[in-house]
Amino acid sequence: MSIIAALVGGGFEDVEYTKPVEAFRNAGHMITIVGKAAGEEVKGKHGTAVRIDRSAAEISPERFDALFIPGGHSPDRLRIDPDVVEFVRKFVESGRPVFLICHAPQLLITARVLRGRRVAGWPSIRVDIENAGAEFMDAPVVEDGNLVSSRKPEDIPAFVEAALKRLG
Amino acid sequence: MSIIAALVGGGFEDVEYTKPVEAFRNAGHMITIVGKAAGEEVKGKHGTAVRIDRSAAEISPERFDALFIPGGHSPDRLRIDPDVVEFVRKFVESGRPVFLICHAPQLLITARVLRGRRVAGWPSIRVDIENAGAEFMDAPVVEDGNLVSSRKPEDIPAFVEAALKRLG
Repeated sequence: MSIIAALVGGGFEDVEYTKPVEAFRNAGHMITIVGKAAGEEVKGKHGTAVRIDRSAAEISPERFDALFIPGGHSPDRLRIDPDVVEFVRKFVESGRPVFLICHAPQLLITARVLRGRRVAGWPSIRVDIENAGAEFMDAPVVEDGNLVSSRKPEDIPAFVEAALKRLG
Repeated sequence: MSIIAALVGGGFEDVEYTKPVEAFRNAGHMITIVGKAAGEEVKGKHGTAVRIDRSAAEISPERFDALFIPGGHSPDRLRIDPDVVEFVRKFVESGRPVFLICHAPQLLITARVLRGRRVAGWPSIRVDIENAGAEFMDAPVVEDGNLVSSRKPEDIPAFVEAALKRLG
């Protein structure tokens, strides 16, 4: 059983949150929802409501076995918060698994931890990924070190399968 | 009287479109709304409906005296379209005025025309701007060559004033 931090802000792509979280829970893993402010309710692009369990400022990345970042507008909104960015930076540098889908690499760009890595992501951020010194991969799931990444909702089955393997 | 191309896609920040367009029209300028597909209706984050006059694929940047790009989610959605990106690239390289607010620099990053420039923008895209070889400026309005840029809705009065001066 692993404890997974799901990093969520307003405007997340609903299925990119709900489907992986359901699969992680069904496999016996625990989810803590981390965001800007504990107790805050954030909504997905299509209305899914999620309550933040813990703020990134108050909780140590070491409490978790893996980090999961859904896409949509959420990563761009979260990367304005220095505590969230620092949480992501520490997590990526810890070597523990990080699961990224869609716009999630934006948070790693702002945390300056993407250089030299290979990642999949939503095609709109391709040049941002390349300018950050990383390689953009157009594949359903890409694994590079501790990073497991996918492009879009259609990739969720492959994304979940690869993530669950990492959790063992 | 100038003819201004307003480049608009779904999820634009409503006031960043409506207020400058109102000011440009009140000053006697004409607006053509350019987007992915002519005739398409796109909506702002807060519901403002706008109909696209011309697609970026079918119209030459030379038809316009200036380019105006509002922010919100619109620039990130538009930069997936190669015709839109090419329209922006040609416009910036033409030397004619380009008015950018909020997330608008994302389109210039994907068009690879931001290197060596100084721009203001929404703070979430600061590292993307820097990784593109540009300088991020935290000021209400920044002018660098043909680029006039601002950060956010609160900057609109300064943004509009600087843009109107360029239109003469």
